[in-house]
Amino acid sequence: MSGPAADGPAGPRIVALGGGHGLYATLTAMRFLSPEVTAIVTVADDGGSSGRLRGELDLIPPGDLRMALAALLVAPTALADKPAAAAEEAQLWGALLQHRFGGHGALAGHPIGNLLLVGLTELLGDPIEALDHLRRLFDVTGRVLPMSTVPLVIEADVTGLEADPRLSRAILGQVAVATTPGKVRRVRLLPDRAPASPEACSAIEDADLVVLGPGSWFSSVIPHVLVPDQLDALISTSARKMLIVNLAPEPGETPGFSVERHLHVLHAHADRLRIDDVLVDERSVPAGRERDHLARAAALFGADLHLGELAVPGRHVHDPERVARAVAGLMDDKPLPVQTDGKHGRLS
Amino acid sequence: MSGPAADGPAGPRIVALGGGHGLYATLTAMRFLSPEVTAIVTVADDGGSSGRLRGELDLIPPGDLRMALAALLVAPTALADKPAAAAEEAQLWGALLQHRFGGHGALAGHPIGNLLLVGLTELLGDPIEALDHLRRLFDVTGRVLPMSTVPLVIEADVTGLEADPRLSRAILGQVAVATTPGKVRRVRLLPDRAPASPEACSAIEDADLVVLGPGSWFSSVIPHVLVPDQLDALISTSARKMLIVNLAPEPGETPGFSVERHLHVLHAHADRLRIDDVLVDERSVPAGRERDHLARAAALFGADLHLGELAVPGRHVHDPERVARAVAGLMDDKPLPVQTDGKHGRLS
Repeated sequence: MSGPAADGPAGPRIVALGGGHGLYATLTAMRFLSPEVTAIVTVADDGGSSGRLRGELDLIPPGDLRMALAALLVAPTALADKPAAAAEEAQLWGALLQHRFGGHGALAGHPIGNLLLVGLTELLGDPIEALDHLRRLFDVTGRVLPMSTVPLVIEADVTGLEADPRLSRAILGQVAVATTPGKVRRVRLLPDRAPASPEACSAIEDADLVVLGPGSWFSSVIPHVLVPDQLDALISTSARKMLIVNLAPEPGETPGFSVERHLHVLHAHADRLRIDDVLVDERSVPAGRERDHLARAAALFGADLHLGELAVPGRHVHDPERVARAVAGLMDDKPLPVQTDGKHGRLS
Repeated sequence: MSGPAADGPAGPRIVALGGGHGLYATLTAMRFLSPEVTAIVTVADDGGSSGRLRGELDLIPPGDLRMALAALLVAPTALADKPAAAAEEAQLWGALLQHRFGGHGALAGHPIGNLLLVGLTELLGDPIEALDHLRRLFDVTGRVLPMSTVPLVIEADVTGLEADPRLSRAILGQVAVATTPGKVRRVRLLPDRAPASPEACSAIEDADLVVLGPGSWFSSVIPHVLVPDQLDALISTSARKMLIVNLAPEPGETPGFSVERHLHVLHAHADRLRIDDVLVDERSVPAGRERDHLARAAALFGADLHLGELAVPGRHVHDPERVARAVAGLMDDKPLPVQTDGKHGRLS
């Protein structure tokens, strides 16, 4: 949280891993702490606009990458760092990236940023080069990288679809996994041993802080530990590693999941992974025995459990300012702020 | 062609009217003469990507506007004015604007610039605002304006479609007009009395030089004199007005048309219009009587006829450098350079 040094980085080097709206919130939060934020984004989405574009052009699904770019572009701190006119333009381009075509035709529902990213990737032949050019075009501080340089497919072992509840079936594709009426037990990525993005691995190795989650657990969070080289980077980095757990179960992927169960499931996919801190919103776990169980689940990763106020009061949405305050406090070895009935001061 | 003055404009204020590839060449040419170039672009296209987007979203057809923006972005003089790295980025963005999606799906064939312009127009509700923002985003010197703020439709009276060759039929739409096997006699724009773009009219009023053509005669050139307020601006401006005539007849719109016929047809649509100079490539009109006839056709507009070398040798394409040299010479009251068997020096 200190100011920029004369010749050093302007803040801690932070890497945030995830996808979708969860990553958007984390990036907004981390941007309060440092301009040196790198997003590493899942590329296994096959729904909505991304799914249509994947089917049509066989490129990396752009949706989560576009959202991450927009998050870094219009984060309050990013806008505050610019002159007023430039901040206004940045907001316009953020809105354009996210704007979905109307009508009922072939374009309806495609965010313009998806088309821009896919078109530039088609032109240049490389999604990372495309992302870096867009970053410069829109004057984005920070960087967005795909978790893998090839489009990936999620496959899940799901129980509860057969008469015999012990029988497991393989379900293919993110949408199918997210909407299965069965119970997701385990996910894999196809192709097997997916190639990591070397830039993403370097960013993790060089980071001061790595943040995983929140997000759709099986399709946006766990995939990050299923790319072998990226998992190795997560294991070997000297960065402080934090896991931010979801505020509530998701109807499709994690119905009825306790916070503790989220941790067990992640651990089952990457038992070698060590994490320093597990951050949980205090309202998502009742006080008492459940918190003890949760602390034991965090200990599976060698992590300390931190409970505090992370959500927008009354909503199941992480509050970027509260998350930023919590993370900054932990970096300074302070406990998480707890509930103050909305009387939080604002980050300056 | 003089250098920038301390406080005045950096060159003559030039307005180029047209559409499609013809306007692209003129803009590239005019950019040799001045950074103060405004493109005014027809908005009656209903073919290709523009036609599909019009049908889907009911917005101004973006294709010719996107091409004009790309022309100003990557004109050799525009690139030469930038540092090397910025020129390289400008070329990339020019290529992106023009890049058409591959594949065989819903996006195939759409240039990315069309989607960007249509999306931003949908977001902002105003094509001129959208064009101005894109201009700033890509650091384009010069301006691109639509001829009208609403999408227009071309309707043509066509003969030769009936057994009786005197009978005329109304043909609707630019593609239909451009591909009719009949003879186009007259075109109109719908809606009747189409609203001009006030910015376009102001640019014409304030210009030092207005250049009309070359381009598809009935669908890119003549429409500019069919918007009443724009025609009034063309008549009242004190700018020098030049008409650059096509190098060859077009199979669809103007099969078998002589250069002279091009002038007669334009005059039939706007007999009040005065023009100072008519520029014709010397190889498109045989010496002798035909040139006398042509000079009389130019006199219909009160214009002087200038014959010289305007085309790429051996091709039916205007050469921007030769056009620039010719126009600059006329501005200095010099005759057009004539054929020198490719021994032209290059503009510096």
